[in-house]
Amino acid sequence: MNPTALFDPDKLVETGARVVEKTRALRKLVGTPAATAPGTGDTRFVPTPLPAAANEEESDSTWGFADTRFEARADSSVVLTGQRYLLCGDPLPNLMPWIRGVMQLDLRPDDKHPYAFPPQVSEAVRNDAFEQAIGAHLAADQLDRDPRARLRRGHGHTQEEMYAIRYGAIERVPDLVVYPADEDQVVAVVAAALAHDVVLIPYGGGTNVTDALRCPTGEKRMICSVDLRRMNKVRWIDPVNRMACIEAGAIGRHIMAQLAQHGFTMGHEPDSVEFSTLGGWVATHASGMKKNKYGNIEDMLVDVTAVTPQGVLRRNQAAPRESVGIDPRLWLLGSEGRLGIVTSAVVKLFPLPEVQKYGSVLFHDFETGVAFMYDLAQAGSWPASVRLMDNIQFQFGQALKPAATGWKVHKSKAEKLFVTKIQGYDPNKMTACTLVFEGSRREVAAQEALVYEIAKKHGGFPAGAENGQRGYQLTWGIAYIRDFVMDHWVVAESFETSVPWSHLVSMVDNVKRRVVEMHKDHGLPGVPFITARVTQIYETGACVYFYFAFGHKGLADPNHAFHAIENEARAEILRSGGSLSHHHGIGKLRQHFMPTILSQAGIDMQAALKAAIDPRNIFGAGNQNAARAAGDYT
Amino acid sequence: MNPTALFDPDKLVETGARVVEKTRALRKLVGTPAATAPGTGDTRFVPTPLPAAANEEESDSTWGFADTRFEARADSSVVLTGQRYLLCGDPLPNLMPWIRGVMQLDLRPDDKHPYAFPPQVSEAVRNDAFEQAIGAHLAADQLDRDPRARLRRGHGHTQEEMYAIRYGAIERVPDLVVYPADEDQVVAVVAAALAHDVVLIPYGGGTNVTDALRCPTGEKRMICSVDLRRMNKVRWIDPVNRMACIEAGAIGRHIMAQLAQHGFTMGHEPDSVEFSTLGGWVATHASGMKKNKYGNIEDMLVDVTAVTPQGVLRRNQAAPRESVGIDPRLWLLGSEGRLGIVTSAVVKLFPLPEVQKYGSVLFHDFETGVAFMYDLAQAGSWPASVRLMDNIQFQFGQALKPAATGWKVHKSKAEKLFVTKIQGYDPNKMTACTLVFEGSRREVAAQEALVYEIAKKHGGFPAGAENGQRGYQLTWGIAYIRDFVMDHWVVAESFETSVPWSHLVSMVDNVKRRVVEMHKDHGLPGVPFITARVTQIYETGACVYFYFAFGHKGLADPNHAFHAIENEARAEILRSGGSLSHHHGIGKLRQHFMPTILSQAGIDMQAALKAAIDPRNIFGAGNQNAARAAGDYT
Repeated sequence: MNPTALFDPDKLVETGARVVEKTRALRKLVGTPAATAPGTGDTRFVPTPLPAAANEEESDSTWGFADTRFEARADSSVVLTGQRYLLCGDPLPNLMPWIRGVMQLDLRPDDKHPYAFPPQVSEAVRNDAFEQAIGAHLAADQLDRDPRARLRRGHGHTQEEMYAIRYGAIERVPDLVVYPADEDQVVAVVAAALAHDVVLIPYGGGTNVTDALRCPTGEKRMICSVDLRRMNKVRWIDPVNRMACIEAGAIGRHIMAQLAQHGFTMGHEPDSVEFSTLGGWVATHASGMKKNKYGNIEDMLVDVTAVTPQGVLRRNQAAPRESVGIDPRLWLLGSEGRLGIVTSAVVKLFPLPEVQKYGSVLFHDFETGVAFMYDLAQAGSWPASVRLMDNIQFQFGQALKPAATGWKVHKSKAEKLFVTKIQGYDPNKMTACTLVFEGSRREVAAQEALVYEIAKKHGGFPAGAENGQRGYQLTWGIAYIRDFVMDHWVVAESFETSVPWSHLVSMVDNVKRRVVEMHKDHGLPGVPFITARVTQIYETGACVYFYFAFGHKGLADPNHAFHAIENEARAEILRSGGSLSHHHGIGKLRQHFMPTILSQAGIDMQAALKAAIDPRNIFGAGNQNAARAAGDYT
Repeated sequence: MNPTALFDPDKLVETGARVVEKTRALRKLVGTPAATAPGTGDTRFVPTPLPAAANEEESDSTWGFADTRFEARADSSVVLTGQRYLLCGDPLPNLMPWIRGVMQLDLRPDDKHPYAFPPQVSEAVRNDAFEQAIGAHLAADQLDRDPRARLRRGHGHTQEEMYAIRYGAIERVPDLVVYPADEDQVVAVVAAALAHDVVLIPYGGGTNVTDALRCPTGEKRMICSVDLRRMNKVRWIDPVNRMACIEAGAIGRHIMAQLAQHGFTMGHEPDSVEFSTLGGWVATHASGMKKNKYGNIEDMLVDVTAVTPQGVLRRNQAAPRESVGIDPRLWLLGSEGRLGIVTSAVVKLFPLPEVQKYGSVLFHDFETGVAFMYDLAQAGSWPASVRLMDNIQFQFGQALKPAATGWKVHKSKAEKLFVTKIQGYDPNKMTACTLVFEGSRREVAAQEALVYEIAKKHGGFPAGAENGQRGYQLTWGIAYIRDFVMDHWVVAESFETSVPWSHLVSMVDNVKRRVVEMHKDHGLPGVPFITARVTQIYETGACVYFYFAFGHKGLADPNHAFHAIENEARAEILRSGGSLSHHHGIGKLRQHFMPTILSQAGIDMQAALKAAIDPRNIFGAGNQNAARAAGDYT
């Protein structure tokens, strides 16, 4: 069984529908007194781990799987290698020409920015007493001193980090990587770090985008990366009480596959779900694309266990909602490795949906699309996912379509004609909203009726399930595009915020304008790529995701301008009523903005908690240090 | 305009439907760039405060309003005085006879347990320097030294507390009560307390049921109760972004009335909603009866402001969901006055529902009712409120019906005959589920169809809207019954838990059995009253509410037995898979159980936070002190 294959949400549904029947009998237990000792989980079972899948190798120089990358051909067409995504295999003739046009850059297939990977890493700081202490608990193969392994644990996936590993270096990386296999081993590592003054940085999928994994450059102590990949089991599933206990190092795609075997899902699908881990979701306070139905990570957690400098934070049971005083488990949300290592969590489960349907709607412009999103948010019955692209992103989606052949050519041309000529959509203004419905047959039917009715009021044109599915699943494929454009002298980044409805449109306008201004001020070539998408809705506002890129051919180093523009974009978001982050977090990238959003007392309280729980600062990745200036990672 | 009249949910809906139209125009702003400075809330308005209502006096010797109490007449019928509740006015002929029968007690109208209220309070500890310091910021009428005012702030509404103020005394009460009118005044009080070593205990509605308001008996410092009643404004409403900023001392019924004027509701309806405050909801981590639709307090909060010993914890904006690091605002949830004083919160709003419908379903027994609740929880589209009584509680509801007269006699008799003879329901086993549907017309229609379909599968018999409405609104009326039975030598208490579905029935059975055993062991007269109700549902389990009472005539003091039985009931809940609390909290009443549910590291972390934020323990109510033995309130 190949978990990657299972990752296709449609296949998940099929698999689930078959096995969900099996849990029916178990569920009958509910109406009768439990047969065995109460509180011991008589309705739990231990699932058989899925066999290791072939072909799971990840790249350490680029995003994602090692077999997947965009490649330019001599005719300027582009192909996504491998077979994992809808986008794979077909030549995409329009992508490079479209980028050339929209960014006014002379992108050529053979003009690549040569790079050397991996860069050298500095010599490891040693701490023999620490290594001896953990050596009593961990086997030799659980300690890794390989420079490339150390390098990988020393960064996440920000633009600067990915640029640095190709074209520069990472100044400070962990000195040692350890792979604990259970909670006792984590306890041993933490105890040894406390005894021997070693810095620990928890590591999950390495997909962080806030410089949270970066080592403080001035740290003289040994830095040990605690990679949780061996703690990846689903310990138990309770199909009756709809909970599962999952180890923190379990990766999103494996969690999905394992739960689907038994008819369930967590429903958590962040853009990084293929690679990020449960522990990372807790530590970054994550949000997934289907949060409308399944909630954000804080809604999914029933319990969390962590190893802290104070010992193991653990509860005796996993209860539904509680009021049990000041709850230290909540401190782990967004903790970004500052307080300890999340080792496992009990999460809420949902049965795999009876029905999954995609949909899409075209709107005349972004503002109209936002008005539709707003009215839908007010209506209160939301599809699992509703996402609205702006016009540039809509065009980008069109540019990612393979060449139509045969009958499809005519169909495609006719469709375009119909939409633009008959319906009057302007190709340079129109936008699209993609929809994912999940639930029971009747739930989905009711939601569809409501959504298309609201869309109609806003002049929306239903554009079909295929476009919706493509739009939704594009997320995973386009994650590989940054590496592709980086090959061709373009740096690119995404960033997000949450914003009250009434400020959404103006915030997006302001940020776009500031980026264009800054791009000009820095005398950068071409036109900046800046586009926005509304990805999650709330009663009170929405999450907005920006993509930003510029060409830098001819510049000695794009980093100075990149930093300045990204920082200014964030400042403009805050000025325009947006938040510091919807789900990426703070890390080190955004910490200097903390005094802008939080009173000094709040910052003092955070510092007081940190000092109280970890007085020796062994969880010393240095995140959320509000006293630092922008870019000061010492 | 009488806010109490508005409290009737049906009237709220009417009022709301008219005014919701007014916000439509405002909402059109969303699709266009905001006209004024971004982030400054150009869609907010300041609502005109409602005029003070007449007839709002609360009783300080019993629960609730001063004009409302159950009174027994010579013929053993009982009347609820006043006009506030559905239950008021009509003689209830069956209540006393039914209690006599079910508790095997010789309850007589004229046999009352005489009491003296108010008891004497001890002399106030003085701290002139403190009074002088706050005197610079507060007017003379904002300082209250009246013994009766001090007494009221020294207790909540546990059985022991209410018994103590009638038949005994409260050993230690606050020495001074202050009424700050704004956040600056709260800051002044906190600063003075820090400077002059005074203990502060925040006070909202005084409805706490975990001894959280009790003063530590050994406290030698001056204790100052900070009563937030003057901080009761709705500061602003943002109808577009569906938020309101409300001061912490605002009382539930006033919040409901004020928001309803503008077409909105928070949807938060704890049993105490008439008297409890927003600040109290945050501090106790509250849950309301309609949480299925509107969420628990943690789901409603967009922002919270508090004055702590570190200063004012405040954010610069109210954003939809965020990931902004370790968030000190979350520490306030369930903080029970340990970290500071909540001064205001921004909460999510919901438009008043287009439709509100009640419903009810009869089931053959409690187990069947639970199976129905479970299947409904799995189906995922929940009415705003679904509550299941057990048989004793069902009988209790019947005993609370006024005498039927005229046509109603026949109807009522015929109904009973139909249900018991034709449908085969056993009066000593049958149970009822009450339902409240709120939402759009189509939402409610869909939910009704689903609910009654699931009910039918479990042999449920729809028993109409009137019974549902009565059942739902009974909550507020029956809150007065404890005082009535206390008059007649009966002590009574409610307590709650959350429990995974598979343990629900066995937990309820075990607790009932243990209470009966303990009642016998203590040689108490008659039969104990012990009954359960399932009040809130989750995917993972449910909240269960118990009522417990026993007669104590002839005993010198019922408190020893009461303590022992209540404590053992809680221990049995924990052994049977329930949680320490669903929404009442910990306070001092349950603190000795904390080591049972949380690892030592967790308890150490809580203590470390408290010491870091409040090193002088000026927020010294002494709640959540896990090191204390049961009943040790020194």
